[in-house]
Amino acid sequence: MPPLCTLLSDFGTRDWYVGAMKGTLLRLAPGTSLVDLTHDVEPGDIASAGFVLAGAAPAFPAGTVHLAVVDPGVGTARRLLAASCGAHFFVAPDNGLLTRALAGVALGAPVEVRAVERPDLYLDAPGQTFHGRDRFAPIAAALLRGEPLASLGARIEDAVTVTIEERPTRDPIHGRVEGHIVYVDRYGNLVTDIPASWLQGRPLLAARSGPCKLPGLYSHYAELLPGVPALLVGSLGTLEIAVRDTSAAKATGLGCGDAVTIELEPSER
Amino acid sequence: MPPLCTLLSDFGTRDWYVGAMKGTLLRLAPGTSLVDLTHDVEPGDIASAGFVLAGAAPAFPAGTVHLAVVDPGVGTARRLLAASCGAHFFVAPDNGLLTRALAGVALGAPVEVRAVERPDLYLDAPGQTFHGRDRFAPIAAALLRGEPLASLGARIEDAVTVTIEERPTRDPIHGRVEGHIVYVDRYGNLVTDIPASWLQGRPLLAARSGPCKLPGLYSHYAELLPGVPALLVGSLGTLEIAVRDTSAAKATGLGCGDAVTIELEPSER
Amino acid sequence: MPPLCTLLSDFGTRDWYVGAMKGTLLRLAPGTSLVDLTHDVEPGDIASAGFVLAGAAPAFPAGTVHLAVVDPGVGTARRLLAASCGAHFFVAPDNGLLTRALAGVALGAPVEVRAVERPDLYLDAPGQTFHGRDRFAPIAAALLRGEPLASLGARIEDAVTVTIEERPTRDPIHGRVEGHIVYVDRYGNLVTDIPASWLQGRPLLAARSGPCKLPGLYSHYAELLPGVPALLVGSLGTLEIAVRDTSAAKATGLGCGDAVTIELEPSER
Repeated sequence: MPPLCTLLSDFGTRDWYVGAMKGTLLRLAPGTSLVDLTHDVEPGDIASAGFVLAGAAPAFPAGTVHLAVVDPGVGTARRLLAASCGAHFFVAPDNGLLTRALAGVALGAPVEVRAVERPDLYLDAPGQTFHGRDRFAPIAAALLRGEPLASLGARIEDAVTVTIEERPTRDPIHGRVEGHIVYVDRYGNLVTDIPASWLQGRPLLAARSGPCKLPGLYSHYAELLPGVPALLVGSLGTLEIAVRDTSAAKATGLGCGDAVTIELEPSER
Repeated sequence: MPPLCTLLSDFGTRDWYVGAMKGTLLRLAPGTSLVDLTHDVEPGDIASAGFVLAGAAPAFPAGTVHLAVVDPGVGTARRLLAASCGAHFFVAPDNGLLTRALAGVALGAPVEVRAVERPDLYLDAPGQTFHGRDRFAPIAAALLRGEPLASLGARIEDAVTVTIEERPTRDPIHGRVEGHIVYVDRYGNLVTDIPASWLQGRPLLAARSGPCKLPGLYSHYAELLPGVPALLVGSLGTLEIAVRDTSAAKATGLGCGDAVTIELEPSER
Repeated sequence: MPPLCTLLSDFGTRDWYVGAMKGTLLRLAPGTSLVDLTHDVEPGDIASAGFVLAGAAPAFPAGTVHLAVVDPGVGTARRLLAASCGAHFFVAPDNGLLTRALAGVALGAPVEVRAVERPDLYLDAPGQTFHGRDRFAPIAAALLRGEPLASLGARIEDAVTVTIEERPTRDPIHGRVEGHIVYVDRYGNLVTDIPASWLQGRPLLAARSGPCKLPGLYSHYAELLPGVPALLVGSLGTLEIAVRDTSAAKATGLGCGDAVTIELEPSER
């Protein structure tokens, strides 16, 4: 199989940036299969970029290199990271972009993060504004050519992490679960950080987010009642709030960071 | 040649959905070449999705698998289809998305549609909201690995069809042709369902759509008079309404469903 | 390595146009690796398309075929071009789209431009509105299959060129440099045509564009002072105007064509 490299950035799709990064990868690692995750991350939105990466990466085969460049600190002293998690490889700036992907149980342990110090790999290019092409692509290409991760730099334990919103909490005895909306997708579905597994087998007494009551737990979108926001199990295994045939974000006014509270029927003691 | 799979969806390009579906295809059918048709279908717009699929699929080589997921009924009892038309394969929900592609003479007969019943292929994933990743991608991967279509499920003759707008009509003796606008493209060109072949060799006496008179039949955009909407032969072989250097949709206010009427010079009897 | 073809167009990503062009390439040149540069060029914006192509093409490996279709004159007598520049190949309409790419020192000399006359290659398709699929893709496929450039048509020296904005000028003795904003990227950075090399080693006395004073020359975005537009060296080796964490285009009101003037400390005589 040809080596496989995914790409994620905030470069947008209308300038030469994505093309120049892809060309560099194909020039330095000929025959690589390139797969776009997205280039439509809002400029500098590291948290969303990390969320998308963590959602998509586990689907790929072992050995995939994931190149992710959302890099408002380009040109500063921020480090360049190469990492492995299970059989997946990641290349990204040291700004928290990898936090969720490396924390994801989906990819399995162990995690190894290295601060890249290989100026011999970098392109001799004008300016300090496009490390996606000039540094990150050459680092990813080295991995795609089969260079060992350990050859790229020293192992570190202090990579920058994004502050993930307050973790969800649960009180199993009284049946109270609390979490937050952590992502709004293109359909306007409100993805939360509450694992669906926390609810298993126990009826919901009540659920709400802000002013919205959330009746019941549904299995799929077509089952929802028109106009009524409700909970269902999303594709990442967490609860999400959806409204049938429309954007839950618009219909409810809810968004990232808003709290979600659920009362379960108390378990028998 | 590597197996070839096209992708069409309403997933948009900014979330993890497209990446997760692609990763699954590459994990289950290693070495596949993936080609995006579009992921920018408006959420749930099955008719437009079918139009784009029917317009693009015939260009691909024999053996291509076309995976199309616009699936507002995800998780319901709607069937999952695998089909062949000529030497092309299609995988999609049973909601009419394939109607135009399978009707297209471009791909040739015969058509074979099967209702997939292969739970052994499906991923054991959380939730019932992402069959693109969890069911459709594994079905497409089976075809890409060379599993025969017949192994996927029983043949059916009652696949859901979208109601295609009233078919265009013609009265050859009196030279009257009637049809409708069926698609508006990104340039604002108004694509109709009237085969250009119906006009061959006969001058137009008059043509109109709503309040717009459409003078003459033109060969290409640069031939049009500035500001005057007119007919030309579009790339699918049907007539379209265009305005030079601007959007005909905006300039005329016309859109999908609007009628187009043409009077031809009566043929000699 | 499989043959490599980049694609650039103003087709957008929501219709069947890109898919139909890709399918045709893969049908006529099986096994080709396709890489999108962009399809989000504004309809008919030949100048921007040429800028993006010139920015991305040099990154690709030798032997790459670059297929670029922004073609408001489709169907007219405008010629179809096939060209080589260094070890890169280009296929495009004769409307100036290739001007910057073929002028780019990045690809190296020599340049060879041919007017394609190979009706035997063209598809027998309805209408004269989609030469991307019906003519340009088959021409690119011929190159991808290894047909020699010389077989496609006669060499020409009079290809249409876009008027590149007034060239930047410098007065080395008095230290005055003048140029223009030539591109606005998705971040709102204002890319100029002034080579950064013209400033090397000489302090800026003053710089401005329209009403904006531009203090100093910075190395990277994170070094900029909040809210203050300033100059830095962009990824194409020319100066650009940026504002930290926001769009310089919006913050300043400047755009393509606006003049930029720089006073350098006079060199010692």
